[in-house]
Amino acid sequence: MTSSDPFRVGLLGHGTVGSAFHELLDARAEAIEAEVGRRPEIAGVLTRSQGSFDEILERSDLLVELMGGTEPTREYVLRAMSAGRHVVTANKQLLSQHGEELFQAAREGGVQLRFEAAVAGVVPAIRVMNETLAAAYIERVHGIVNGTTNFILTEMARTGESYSTALEQAQELGYAEADPSEDVSGKDAAAKMAILARLAFNAPVHLGQVPFEGIERVTVDDIEYAKELGLALKLIGSAERVDGGISVSVYPAFLYADHPLASVNGAFNAVTVESPAITEITLSGPGAGGPQTASAVLGDVISAMIPPPSLPPPAIDQPVITDVEFSFYLHLEVADRPGVLAQVAEILGMQGVSIKSVVQKGLGDDARLVMVMHPVLESKFRAAVDLISRLDFVRSEPRVIRVIEEAFEAPA
Amino acid sequence: MTSSDPFRVGLLGHGTVGSAFHELLDARAEAIEAEVGRRPEIAGVLTRSQGSFDEILERSDLLVELMGGTEPTREYVLRAMSAGRHVVTANKQLLSQHGEELFQAAREGGVQLRFEAAVAGVVPAIRVMNETLAAAYIERVHGIVNGTTNFILTEMARTGESYSTALEQAQELGYAEADPSEDVSGKDAAAKMAILARLAFNAPVHLGQVPFEGIERVTVDDIEYAKELGLALKLIGSAERVDGGISVSVYPAFLYADHPLASVNGAFNAVTVESPAITEITLSGPGAGGPQTASAVLGDVISAMIPPPSLPPPAIDQPVITDVEFSFYLHLEVADRPGVLAQVAEILGMQGVSIKSVVQKGLGDDARLVMVMHPVLESKFRAAVDLISRLDFVRSEPRVIRVIEEAFEAPA
Repeated sequence: MTSSDPFRVGLLGHGTVGSAFHELLDARAEAIEAEVGRRPEIAGVLTRSQGSFDEILERSDLLVELMGGTEPTREYVLRAMSAGRHVVTANKQLLSQHGEELFQAAREGGVQLRFEAAVAGVVPAIRVMNETLAAAYIERVHGIVNGTTNFILTEMARTGESYSTALEQAQELGYAEADPSEDVSGKDAAAKMAILARLAFNAPVHLGQVPFEGIERVTVDDIEYAKELGLALKLIGSAERVDGGISVSVYPAFLYADHPLASVNGAFNAVTVESPAITEITLSGPGAGGPQTASAVLGDVISAMIPPPSLPPPAIDQPVITDVEFSFYLHLEVADRPGVLAQVAEILGMQGVSIKSVVQKGLGDDARLVMVMHPVLESKFRAAVDLISRLDFVRSEPRVIRVIEEAFEAPA
Repeated sequence: MTSSDPFRVGLLGHGTVGSAFHELLDARAEAIEAEVGRRPEIAGVLTRSQGSFDEILERSDLLVELMGGTEPTREYVLRAMSAGRHVVTANKQLLSQHGEELFQAAREGGVQLRFEAAVAGVVPAIRVMNETLAAAYIERVHGIVNGTTNFILTEMARTGESYSTALEQAQELGYAEADPSEDVSGKDAAAKMAILARLAFNAPVHLGQVPFEGIERVTVDDIEYAKELGLALKLIGSAERVDGGISVSVYPAFLYADHPLASVNGAFNAVTVESPAITEITLSGPGAGGPQTASAVLGDVISAMIPPPSLPPPAIDQPVITDVEFSFYLHLEVADRPGVLAQVAEILGMQGVSIKSVVQKGLGDDARLVMVMHPVLESKFRAAVDLISRLDFVRSEPRVIRVIEEAFEAPA
C-alpha cells in the first residue's frame, strides 16, 4: 500500500451525527489529503435497513461507530478491533459500561480506539487528558458536560422562569429532546464523568458506580437566593481523589463567581482539570450538536490516519493585511455647547463611520462623548478621528479602543 | 537500544524555569517510566558558566532549551535537530523570529520540535491547534496571552486604581517584572500571536509583521464608562482571515460580556479559536509561572518519548468512595418565631456541621433560613437535615444543594 491509497472509513450509523459526519468528510477530504498525504473516503455505510457489517469491515481501514446503544454495537466494535481496524466512536454509553473490555481489545489488536466526541462535544477534553496531562497527577475534574441542563439552568437564572417553562423553551429551540429524561436526570452526564474519571485516575469506573442527581427539583427560589450570595447554579459532574480512593458523581451545585465554570452559560460544555503542577486548565465550547460532534469524530479519524504531528505543515505565503475592519470605542472630552455632537457625527459620517451607541456625560468643562461605532475599516476611522481632534471644542487627545463582539451565536 | 534504556534529556539553561523543570522531571521520572516504559533523566545541564554544548548534545536523546534569547540559542537548536535530536523549547522570541527555519530543520532532521510552553503557559493551545484542529478551517483566534497585563487590567476594573498603581501592585506580587516593558507594551503577546497565527493559517508570520499596542495609556475612566455599556477591557491578541489574506495584531479591546474571554480575570491566559465546523473552543488557565511552564515542557518531553496514545494505560483498581466532604447550601421554610435559628444551629453542631453564612428572609408564614456550611462529610450533614426536617416549625422539605469553592488561588 502506498501513501496515495485512499484511507477507507466504514460508517456504522447514518442518523443526525452520522450523516453530518459523512457530509463533513466529503467536504474536507481534499484538504485532509493535502495535509496528511492520504485521502479519506467512505467505504460503506451500515444502517438498520441496509449494508452488511462483514462487507464494510472487510473493505475499511477504520470504522466510525455512530449507531449508539450497546448491542450489537459492542460486538461490532470488538470484532473490528480484533480484525486490526481502528475505531472512532462517540458512544458514551458503550464506553462507560464496557470501557475496560474495549481498551483491552484495542491493546491486543494493536489498533487505536478514539472517542473525543463521546464527552463534551468539540471540547478536546479526551485529547488533553490523554496527551497533555498524560503524566500529570490529576486531583480533580469538574465538568459541565450536558448542554441541555446548562441551557435550562441559565434560562432560569436569567429570566426567573420555572424549571418546567425553561424546559419547554429548550425543547422548542431543539436543545432538549421530547423525552428529556436522560439529560435532566443527570444520567447522560454520569456516563461522561465515568469516562473522564477513567482517564484522570486510571480507575476502571463503571457507569453503575456513578450516583447522579438531576435538575428536575431545582427551584427558581434557590437560584435567586444564591445569587445574593454570589453563587451560580450548574449541573456539575465531579471526579476527585479522596482519602483512599476516588469519588465520581453528578449533582446540581452552586459555584462561587470566581470558579472558571461559573461563567459557562447556555448550551455550552466545559471541563476544569486540577493538578498540582498545572494548577488548573479549563476547556469550553458549544455542547454537542450534529455538526460539532461530526467535527470531533473527523478529528479523531485524522489522528488515526497519521501520528499527531509536532510541527505545522510547511507554510504557504499569504499577504499580511494591516488595514482591517473593527468596531471602535471613541472617548472625547469636549466643551459642552450646542452642536458638538452634530459636528462629530458629521465628520464620522463623511468617512463612512456609523455610530452604534453614544452616551453624553458630565457638564460644562467636564463634558464627554463616549461612542461605540459599527465595524469600519481602521484607516477610515483614524482619518475621522484625526479631523475630530482638530475641532476647537475637543479638549484633549481623543481616546480610541477597539471593541470585539461575540462572533458565535449558539445555534437554535 | 532497549525500551528500558533511560531517555536522556540535555538541559540548556538553568534559571527559574530550567531549575523548576529539572526538579519536576526528577520528581515525576518514576511515574513517567510506569506510564511510557522509559525513564527520563537529565543527561547534562548547560549554563553560562558551566557545561559544554557539544558534550551535552552527544549524550542526549532530546534537548530542552530554556536559555531564552535568539543567539546562540538558534544555532544550538539547529545543530541539535540536524544531529537527529528532538527539541522542546519555551522560547517565543526564537519561534516568532526564526520559526520557518526551525520547522524546516526539524522536517529535514526527522525530529520533533515541540513548544507548548511558548504560548499561554499550561493552556494546551499548541497541541489543540496542531492536533484537534489539524484539518479544521480556522477563521479567527483571539487570545489573552499575557498574564501580567490581564492582572493589571483586572485590578484597575476591580478597584478603580490607576494603571501605575495597579502595575506597582503587580510588581509587588511578582506578576510583573522590575522592567515590565515587554509585557505592558504588548510585545510579548505579539510574539505569541505570531506563533498562533502560523499554526492557525499555515502562514509564515514573523514577529516584525505583528503591530502591537500596549496598555500603558489605558485610563480607569475608559474602563468605567465601558462597564456601563457592558464591556470589559482586555489586552487581546487577534489573528484572523480577512479578504485576501490574514491580519495579526495586539491591542487593548473592549469585549461584550458574553464573549468567552470577557470573564477571564487575573493572571490567567486564554485562547478562543473560531472555525465553522466547531463554532468555537476556549482554553484557559493560569499564565506561565515557573512550575506551570515546567509542566508544559515536561508534557512535550513525554510526547516526544512516545507517540501520543489514543488509549489510557491499563486501569488500576481503586475504591470508589461515596461518602465525601462537601460544602452545602440548606434552604428551610420555617415559622418565624423565637429560637428557630438556635435549634437548627444546635442540631447542625451536634453532627459536627459548622455554619459558614446564614441569611434570614421574609416574615411570618413566609420566613426562610438560607445557610451555607463549611465542608463536612455528606453522611453527617444528611443526618442533621433529617433531624431538622422533623422539627415542628419546619414547614416543608429542606432543600439541599452542594456548593463548590474555587480550589485554585493564583500564586502570589
